[in-house]
Amino acid sequence: MAIRTAEDYRASLRDGRRVYIMGEKVEDVTTHPVLGPTVDTVAGGYELCASKDPAIRDLYVASHPVSGEPISRYYVTPRTSQDLINRSMMIRRSIELVGSLPFGRDIGTDCLNAAFVVAGQMGNQQYQDRALAFLDYLRHNDLITCGAVTDVKGDRSREPANQKHPDYYLHVVDRNADGIVVKGAKAHITSAPVVNEVVVLPTRQMRENEADYAVAFAVPANAQGVTFIARGGRGDWTDHEFHPTARVGTLTEGMIIFDNVFVPWERVFMCGEWQYSMLLAYTFATFHRFTAISYKIPLVECAAGCAVAMARYNGLEKVSHIRNKLADIAAYVETLKALTNAAAREPVMYGDIAVPNPLITNMGKLHFASKYHSFIQLIQDIGGGIIGTAPDRRDWEHPDLHDYLEHYLGGSAQFSTLDRMKMIHETMRQVCSHDSAFHEVITVHAEGSMEAQKMMILAEAPLKRYEEMAQRRAGILPWIGIDGVAEG
Amino acid sequence: MAIRTAEDYRASLRDGRRVYIMGEKVEDVTTHPVLGPTVDTVAGGYELCASKDPAIRDLYVASHPVSGEPISRYYVTPRTSQDLINRSMMIRRSIELVGSLPFGRDIGTDCLNAAFVVAGQMGNQQYQDRALAFLDYLRHNDLITCGAVTDVKGDRSREPANQKHPDYYLHVVDRNADGIVVKGAKAHITSAPVVNEVVVLPTRQMRENEADYAVAFAVPANAQGVTFIARGGRGDWTDHEFHPTARVGTLTEGMIIFDNVFVPWERVFMCGEWQYSMLLAYTFATFHRFTAISYKIPLVECAAGCAVAMARYNGLEKVSHIRNKLADIAAYVETLKALTNAAAREPVMYGDIAVPNPLITNMGKLHFASKYHSFIQLIQDIGGGIIGTAPDRRDWEHPDLHDYLEHYLGGSAQFSTLDRMKMIHETMRQVCSHDSAFHEVITVHAEGSMEAQKMMILAEAPLKRYEEMAQRRAGILPWIGIDGVAEG
Amino acid sequence: MAIRTAEDYRASLRDGRRVYIMGEKVEDVTTHPVLGPTVDTVAGGYELCASKDPAIRDLYVASHPVSGEPISRYYVTPRTSQDLINRSMMIRRSIELVGSLPFGRDIGTDCLNAAFVVAGQMGNQQYQDRALAFLDYLRHNDLITCGAVTDVKGDRSREPANQKHPDYYLHVVDRNADGIVVKGAKAHITSAPVVNEVVVLPTRQMRENEADYAVAFAVPANAQGVTFIARGGRGDWTDHEFHPTARVGTLTEGMIIFDNVFVPWERVFMCGEWQYSMLLAYTFATFHRFTAISYKIPLVECAAGCAVAMARYNGLEKVSHIRNKLADIAAYVETLKALTNAAAREPVMYGDIAVPNPLITNMGKLHFASKYHSFIQLIQDIGGGIIGTAPDRRDWEHPDLHDYLEHYLGGSAQFSTLDRMKMIHETMRQVCSHDSAFHEVITVHAEGSMEAQKMMILAEAPLKRYEEMAQRRAGILPWIGIDGVAEG
Amino acid sequence: MAIRTAEDYRASLRDGRRVYIMGEKVEDVTTHPVLGPTVDTVAGGYELCASKDPAIRDLYVASHPVSGEPISRYYVTPRTSQDLINRSMMIRRSIELVGSLPFGRDIGTDCLNAAFVVAGQMGNQQYQDRALAFLDYLRHNDLITCGAVTDVKGDRSREPANQKHPDYYLHVVDRNADGIVVKGAKAHITSAPVVNEVVVLPTRQMRENEADYAVAFAVPANAQGVTFIARGGRGDWTDHEFHPTARVGTLTEGMIIFDNVFVPWERVFMCGEWQYSMLLAYTFATFHRFTAISYKIPLVECAAGCAVAMARYNGLEKVSHIRNKLADIAAYVETLKALTNAAAREPVMYGDIAVPNPLITNMGKLHFASKYHSFIQLIQDIGGGIIGTAPDRRDWEHPDLHDYLEHYLGGSAQFSTLDRMKMIHETMRQVCSHDSAFHEVITVHAEGSMEAQKMMILAEAPLKRYEEMAQRRAGILPWIGIDGVAEG
Repeated sequence: MAIRTAEDYRASLRDGRRVYIMGEKVEDVTTHPVLGPTVDTVAGGYELCASKDPAIRDLYVASHPVSGEPISRYYVTPRTSQDLINRSMMIRRSIELVGSLPFGRDIGTDCLNAAFVVAGQMGNQQYQDRALAFLDYLRHNDLITCGAVTDVKGDRSREPANQKHPDYYLHVVDRNADGIVVKGAKAHITSAPVVNEVVVLPTRQMRENEADYAVAFAVPANAQGVTFIARGGRGDWTDHEFHPTARVGTLTEGMIIFDNVFVPWERVFMCGEWQYSMLLAYTFATFHRFTAISYKIPLVECAAGCAVAMARYNGLEKVSHIRNKLADIAAYVETLKALTNAAAREPVMYGDIAVPNPLITNMGKLHFASKYHSFIQLIQDIGGGIIGTAPDRRDWEHPDLHDYLEHYLGGSAQFSTLDRMKMIHETMRQVCSHDSAFHEVITVHAEGSMEAQKMMILAEAPLKRYEEMAQRRAGILPWIGIDGVAEG
Repeated sequence: MAIRTAEDYRASLRDGRRVYIMGEKVEDVTTHPVLGPTVDTVAGGYELCASKDPAIRDLYVASHPVSGEPISRYYVTPRTSQDLINRSMMIRRSIELVGSLPFGRDIGTDCLNAAFVVAGQMGNQQYQDRALAFLDYLRHNDLITCGAVTDVKGDRSREPANQKHPDYYLHVVDRNADGIVVKGAKAHITSAPVVNEVVVLPTRQMRENEADYAVAFAVPANAQGVTFIARGGRGDWTDHEFHPTARVGTLTEGMIIFDNVFVPWERVFMCGEWQYSMLLAYTFATFHRFTAISYKIPLVECAAGCAVAMARYNGLEKVSHIRNKLADIAAYVETLKALTNAAAREPVMYGDIAVPNPLITNMGKLHFASKYHSFIQLIQDIGGGIIGTAPDRRDWEHPDLHDYLEHYLGGSAQFSTLDRMKMIHETMRQVCSHDSAFHEVITVHAEGSMEAQKMMILAEAPLKRYEEMAQRRAGILPWIGIDGVAEG
Repeated sequence: MAIRTAEDYRASLRDGRRVYIMGEKVEDVTTHPVLGPTVDTVAGGYELCASKDPAIRDLYVASHPVSGEPISRYYVTPRTSQDLINRSMMIRRSIELVGSLPFGRDIGTDCLNAAFVVAGQMGNQQYQDRALAFLDYLRHNDLITCGAVTDVKGDRSREPANQKHPDYYLHVVDRNADGIVVKGAKAHITSAPVVNEVVVLPTRQMRENEADYAVAFAVPANAQGVTFIARGGRGDWTDHEFHPTARVGTLTEGMIIFDNVFVPWERVFMCGEWQYSMLLAYTFATFHRFTAISYKIPLVECAAGCAVAMARYNGLEKVSHIRNKLADIAAYVETLKALTNAAAREPVMYGDIAVPNPLITNMGKLHFASKYHSFIQLIQDIGGGIIGTAPDRRDWEHPDLHDYLEHYLGGSAQFSTLDRMKMIHETMRQVCSHDSAFHEVITVHAEGSMEAQKMMILAEAPLKRYEEMAQRRAGILPWIGIDGVAEG
Repeated sequence: MAIRTAEDYRASLRDGRRVYIMGEKVEDVTTHPVLGPTVDTVAGGYELCASKDPAIRDLYVASHPVSGEPISRYYVTPRTSQDLINRSMMIRRSIELVGSLPFGRDIGTDCLNAAFVVAGQMGNQQYQDRALAFLDYLRHNDLITCGAVTDVKGDRSREPANQKHPDYYLHVVDRNADGIVVKGAKAHITSAPVVNEVVVLPTRQMRENEADYAVAFAVPANAQGVTFIARGGRGDWTDHEFHPTARVGTLTEGMIIFDNVFVPWERVFMCGEWQYSMLLAYTFATFHRFTAISYKIPLVECAAGCAVAMARYNGLEKVSHIRNKLADIAAYVETLKALTNAAAREPVMYGDIAVPNPLITNMGKLHFASKYHSFIQLIQDIGGGIIGTAPDRRDWEHPDLHDYLEHYLGGSAQFSTLDRMKMIHETMRQVCSHDSAFHEVITVHAEGSMEAQKMMILAEAPLKRYEEMAQRRAGILPWIGIDGVAEG
């Protein structure tokens, strides 16, 4: 088959999966008021593969490396710097074109690519074959995946094996000739209730006594024992706001409960090899943070655009301190972009798989996360108090009020009051809404905390090189001089 | 009369005022789903005056300086450092006891105190008498006020007299023997639709050609030509959340349209004295920023409490980087507190009126505003991703889900999962909600922007002293040495 | 006697003490090219007591609380907020009048005041009596002290008793009826080689197996077995620079080696009470950080003055971004001042001893230390590249060059080129010299690291109060409402 | 000829040039105690071309694009990304191998490359030919250049033509058939007194009435009327310190006075074309900031190495807050490196000249400069107070003191006290010396201030793109959707 339509995708979600949201069981996720828009967003990824613009289509559709059949380009395992750049561009452009990220295949393959790397490092041909077979299954049926990695964790200061009960981290509770049985819960899983396949990895390094926790596998979303509990919405579009026509999607996260779920061996990619759990978590994190810094780019560009626009609509674009703030905003956005591109241009090869540069990727993510709140503060500052207290669309349209608002809410005479109102409302959405607050939280936590990024930076940076340079200067190590050999 | 009941207050709001919200006219603000909670919050201020705890009652009720009748202590014009401390404590405690700030009398008297200072500096006995008469009217009838200061401003780079139309700043359009007629609109006015009297000041320094804009006065909320347009709510409490019993109030802001409103002379406190507009704006800003840093204290204490609690509920309170973050959080909160107290302890006297120290007040406000987003980021960091994606109360109560959630959402074994859920929900409200995003915006804009605070810091700081110290060291000015006289 | 002259003080230093600097033994510290200026600086403290200006004299001279004889006011143990303010003002003013801090009595009494507090908490009358007798000895003979607290520490990750050898922390190696014998080394001790008495405290909390390390005492500077190793100078004044006439002092630090030094029991203030070592270190830190934030004030004022002056000499004082930077500079300086005053105004009483507020003191110190480098960066930014590369005084006076420099190094036409040159040189000294780099280091380390301040902030801040406020809102604890009692 | 020896270079400096330093005229710069080390550093650049290591030699020696003769690779005008990477690597490696940057050819060609770009944009063949002829002269004679760009500027708030006198910016005072006569002074010119040729550019955009200031040219260092006034040293190596054998060079800056200097037309590259002065200043700034971020890399790596080493020597490398700081240090260094590489990999082409990406280059420079002081603070923090107060080498060697120091100044038992002492001394040089303070100043000012970088970031960043993205979302512009065309 390969390359489904958006309707194929929607139909595939009506498969008996067990989904709850806001205290209610959902019969059909595609029509649910909160989950439906998430389905639409993910469906946008299918629509891109059928775009009338060949340049867009070519970005999203590739050829199967063996059969040549058209497949989603997400299912091309990266071999080159260009593959990584393509991957980043797919992610970025999709937000621009769909209005939100059709999240799923990216993280699913972040998981799967990491599984390939680790199977290669293990030298475990069986795991490699299984992962490739699963990938080909995804390619051929053009399926959507999510990545279930973060466990619920219980007491954060305790190891998986040392908790009040053993289930705070997902683990194997039984195994037989056919497969394994797993128990546990994964949290914050984006797109979870609307995918076809759930790919599961351990969230951290496991130790010898935690071998049962070192497990990676995939199961279909409607597998027996799998329950999704989705979080509620974050204030969706209403007619109180000014942009009803633009396609502005959303995504949903969910917990996934694995209540003694059976997984056949052909879908198991790690089981017990605790020594490799670190490499798996680490490689996944690198791929996934590269995905993250890619999808953040259009999001922060758009938020930055609100600042640029509001500065102009307020008549402030030539004021010195505003220009200073716009420069800070631009430097924030473009440093993220430069680091993302650099991570793709300086990959690390594991066998024939190109992994985005782990050091640069983590620095990019840390740059994004550690300075995001200051970035938002700058936009709020430029926007003005009106982005907190603006009247709404129905006020604007009310005959008693319209002329007042038209008269009094103008800004720079170059722009209509209506356009200023629209931009105020967009800026509200970007920096003064439930959604914007939620984005702050995921900035800090999604794809790992800043502490996790610092840990990887410390592991990857050439500290030894720095130290030796200092030791040579200090006279502790010999100087290596002009002729390239140790002196004195 | 003096000291009304909460019911008296509510009754006084059914006076024919013209209020709109979300495109609808409001017949009775006390029963409106968004405005009603604001009324309840403000009514809390009346309830405090009738508290069964004498210590609380004594904090909020004072004696009229002449008649001795009981009056709201807000209506005591500050003469001493202790008066300022009382004022700060009234504000702080009310948030703790009522659950939200009964905002109104504070800013109303911030305006009125500034008017007294300026009338004194002008040597204008008539203005002083009028302001005092108005204060006694408020005292005797125990009325609620708001302060209408911020104009809508149009093109921010243009002066009031140099805009597309003259109405972007409120101004006098006519005057006669009985009074003046004013036109304009004030924005972001907290509590506006639920007060008895609106006190109006100019928002900035005016120049000679802007004398009509240098106008200060008071009008009743139901005055002819006054229209309130309130902003919509920010996601009020639902049964999806976990704290139905606590009294958690809210406030509402609104635009106020003045459509050729008549003001009798006895309510006019400045009219045309543009030379004093700067002093008026400046003194108001000082009083009001002192109010601000007072009411921010319990708000940031409570948010800090979420971080402390979540660290413990997550089992992280002994982890080094978490402790470091908690220390940063505490230093942020307590520096605000120390500066607020210091501003009260080192007042500047204008005649017999004690003005909070302008330099320290502005530094306190700038400290609060410039570091608030980093403070929130720390809380979000400690809280964990669960504060973005937690299931809601109805999930918790659903028979299919309850046991899963009880089992999987535990944290430190010292606490019940239910308590952790409650704290997660409170933390969501504090740092991951429409409300929390709104607080970021008002942090930046309410009571003036950070640029405004820097301008006042620059005006108040002893730059000349610094410079002379450097010039003495540099040998440009003579050294003043041990004997206290210039040397060399 | 009481109140010596500067000459008395100088004479007292010729007592056979064992001092080394830059690889040479010093026969007379008063005439040494590096140590002499330190002696002059400390002597300035004696000169202040003899100032011809009675206001200055009264600040530095007090009456003995019992005998009434004139004594240095540093030797008044603080009982009130005013005593603490006096103490802060003595420190600040002395830098303005002497040109540098006559450091010694401040830290000596920081130690002794802490010893009084701890002896009181122990209820150990003997220690109290000894400390008082020692204080009276200092008062009567008007002696200079230093405080020897920081040990050399060896491997920082190991406890005192768990090092390569036992001497990385000073400890008791013998004891008999007459006294104790101590061994160890103290580092970074300011003014050490030029004092009369060395007061020694433990640098940290000690545990049960470290009782020998829990020792506090005083010895004269020329005691048998005491050796001072002073660090070299930091580039003293030469005729290459422009301010030969101003009195600009300096200070010196030194290691003190205690090579089996005998201390009679009457000079021992703690010996073995490891349970109180924490309180002693903690109380000393509070007193001493209060001293620190006091003496930092005139130093940062003067550095700020260079920025103000250079902005004007460069013609930049009206430029928007420069004004913004000056506001940041002023806020930095004045926040330090406000917190210092607040620490004195809100003391904590231990018996009848007023201890500066520990929370505010530590916040003041952390404010100072954590933002100092940014403050210096702002001054360097405003100063211009010329503060790095300016010609020197001899260039200015060279006949071939003078006219060129006069012509080309002018700035704003309001000032002479000579004055600009002088201010450039002063700014170099403040922010582009060996001395300025050294100040950055002591900003971070003197009076304890930022980590130490954060630890104390965490210990002192009302975290429990924050948490309960959040728990009440969350519905975990009952709400305490308007009537001051738990509800619901 | 091409490719001189270091001795040829030294000999060429004895040419009658007029150099002053610290109030004295210098007869031979090669033997002067301050200037001699600068000559040695620059000579290192010649030694690299004669390295016995072919890989090093090949990095520094290229073939003349026409004649094929060996030339310095600095004199290859960049055509490709690889040329820019080579340029960056030459700069970085030279610091590692020579111990300091042989500064001169880099900035000289930064100027000349900018001149080529501008001549091309003007379409002025004559200027192009002259610049090429001059470049070939440099290539053939293997000469050292400096770039004289920054004027002394007088009152910074006034334009060149609007100052107290016309000479605060260098300008043409006469012209005839043979050439032009210029007057003015350039400040902070690195390596100036030790180069062969001085290349001069305007420091800023000039306006129509400032055409005489729009002048670019080259003159030999011994030209009639040229005087160099070098700044004094910054505390060179003495036997008080621990690293006498390592080759640690230095550089010198100087003012250059142009006292009616004649320049023949064949050395004039711009004269009066004020419309292009902006492009010239801007393009030079881009090339030169790329040079800057390249040479900063090994400098900050080495400083970072002191932190890594001191953490280990102090026994602190496993402590959580130290690791956190090391991660911050590494992220600072490696972000600089990643941005520098990215600027080379994404060049902007002007004709066939590859200009480093201006946006990324300026972000790299701003990253470096704005966070440098925090970086230094972290190193000082990790280093400990001992980096301010350590005894010196002669103390170490003194028989009275050696055993004390050996005993007491040990750190982690893994390292000898001597190695720790050496590393302490190196760290002092890096972060607690006249030199380190000077580096802070040039961080802020060299290659343009942070304000200048922000201005260029604002000019280069795609603000319009951001704004349109926001406008599309807001419904102000039509949405461009999945089919790549405007919708609705």
